[in-house]
Amino acid sequence: MKKYKIAVVGATGVVGRSFLKVLEERKLPAESYTLFASQRSAGSTVRFMDEDYTVQLLTEEAISAGFDIALFSAGGETSKHYAPIAAKSGCLVIDNSSCWRMDPNVPLVVPEVNPQDILKHKGIIANPNCSTIQAMVVLSPIQKKYGIKRVIYSTYQAVSGAGAAGINDLDEGAKAYAAGRETPAPKKFDYPIFCNCIPQIDVFDEDDYTKEELKMVNETRKILGVPDMAVTATCVRVPVFASHSESINLTLENPFEIEDIKALLASSEGVVLVDDVKNKKYPLAADAADKDEVFVGRVRIDRSCENSLNMWCVADNIRKGAATNAVQIAQKYIELMNK
Amino acid sequence: MKKYKIAVVGATGVVGRSFLKVLEERKLPAESYTLFASQRSAGSTVRFMDEDYTVQLLTEEAISAGFDIALFSAGGETSKHYAPIAAKSGCLVIDNSSCWRMDPNVPLVVPEVNPQDILKHKGIIANPNCSTIQAMVVLSPIQKKYGIKRVIYSTYQAVSGAGAAGINDLDEGAKAYAAGRETPAPKKFDYPIFCNCIPQIDVFDEDDYTKEELKMVNETRKILGVPDMAVTATCVRVPVFASHSESINLTLENPFEIEDIKALLASSEGVVLVDDVKNKKYPLAADAADKDEVFVGRVRIDRSCENSLNMWCVADNIRKGAATNAVQIAQKYIELMNK
Repeated sequence: MKKYKIAVVGATGVVGRSFLKVLEERKLPAESYTLFASQRSAGSTVRFMDEDYTVQLLTEEAISAGFDIALFSAGGETSKHYAPIAAKSGCLVIDNSSCWRMDPNVPLVVPEVNPQDILKHKGIIANPNCSTIQAMVVLSPIQKKYGIKRVIYSTYQAVSGAGAAGINDLDEGAKAYAAGRETPAPKKFDYPIFCNCIPQIDVFDEDDYTKEELKMVNETRKILGVPDMAVTATCVRVPVFASHSESINLTLENPFEIEDIKALLASSEGVVLVDDVKNKKYPLAADAADKDEVFVGRVRIDRSCENSLNMWCVADNIRKGAATNAVQIAQKYIELMNK
Repeated sequence: MKKYKIAVVGATGVVGRSFLKVLEERKLPAESYTLFASQRSAGSTVRFMDEDYTVQLLTEEAISAGFDIALFSAGGETSKHYAPIAAKSGCLVIDNSSCWRMDPNVPLVVPEVNPQDILKHKGIIANPNCSTIQAMVVLSPIQKKYGIKRVIYSTYQAVSGAGAAGINDLDEGAKAYAAGRETPAPKKFDYPIFCNCIPQIDVFDEDDYTKEELKMVNETRKILGVPDMAVTATCVRVPVFASHSESINLTLENPFEIEDIKALLASSEGVVLVDDVKNKKYPLAADAADKDEVFVGRVRIDRSCENSLNMWCVADNIRKGAATNAVQIAQKYIELMNK
């Protein structure tokens, strides 16, 4: 089996470190790993695969040095500039930023959902938005069996989605509370997040929706392959460190038995059904943290509309929502290339 | 003007203390106040209206001693037993528990919405569920002008809704985190609430919905006077001390201009429109705490369904969601009786 030269771009951020952890766990057939970062972190040492790696400075030349696969998680600007350069050198870029996701030439992939799109790549594959990925794993089997007519998302998103600075805002808020001090001014968020819910993630865009909300709408359509699917979203930051939770209301094209939906989800790849309300079992952010699966529960008929249901979907936004999904794309790509 | 003999039943709990605070602020035409509690708190002294009140033991005899108005906030069992006894003595009971809300002989009142129901009382008026009250203040003007076809609630509810023990669980969780200790076992909730979202409020009932969710469905229909209105809810506890937030998706009977909806809300009694996304202004739990109004924002067209919109609604669950609304019912009752 071929061995792959793998680059990790943005290896020192919150998601980047999670990339390294997931790579250690999943043991890809790697010939070598090279870790890249910007000027600020280049030259530092990172412990990875029981070895000390010196983080390299990302340059056009360095990223064109014959890599097979590059996992990018260094922000939109870096991806926009360096991903095409890496791709031109023959490397497959798996990009975690939002900048390529809606490009018609770039597949947007959740491996459990649309692995067939991987081979359509022209050098770049985009990793979807964290809040979209977890929903797709749950919605795709329902879409395939019953057809989805409409999706309404309300999210409860962890601060880790905003990186180390977001984590820091909640950390400092909790510590100030415990010490009896006033909540300090936030550094990442626009308002204190401790004991607050902020109904804004990313900047506002068309129709007074945030970009995060529009990502959920547009990426859901692209990944499920239904360009005009009816989707709406309200995205909210909550004072939770790890795991996004989502209240999802669905209207299906066809009638269903709720027990069939549960059985379908329980047997779907990457999904764990946690739905035993008699024993108070349902997905929780605290339980999903550090896991790779998407947890779903509270699956129940919504009698307010024909063929409708409600559910509660939880996943670790840094793992399945980012690093795990990207590494799974790499794994699936390798698998397909070796078939 | 007549002066009223007013009883406060359950004066020492979280909501009871809020009742006293709101009564101090709103200055009803009272001849006297008498504070009641159970055996546990009876005999203790409470500072109220700049005087020391000795809390009386609630007995059948004591509550029948000629009160005009009794504000009950002492749990369902106490209300079930003592409210009819007080009512029989000629007293109007305004009850904060859930036990009388769906009784067809008991008006369920939000004063901004259905004040006309007050005079239909037969001795008891029910104060709605906290998460329902705030939604009603916002939905009622829309219902009156456009007709509401369907409501989908996803809530973000504060721990104070679970009383002092709920507040304590979050307090201890935050302090343990700050001290670097493990999250302690919760005493009130089934799972730790610090940095978690718990998709269960109250016990599970029919169709795998929680009682809190069914309250939102049934109370919405009763208060808006549309017994078959299409309503569904997902109720979630979040790590916030004060104020419930709600993501509300509405489908209306008639077409609308979104700016008209905003103008309608801005001019509605008890509503504050906070909706200036260019300047990142929207309702926040932290801002709504200790306020009596209902704050609404993120009002925007939902293009996933005809005549639909999304909004974000926030209010202090102990004030407008409980104590303020009950005292407003008393005020409106007094006003109507003196007309």
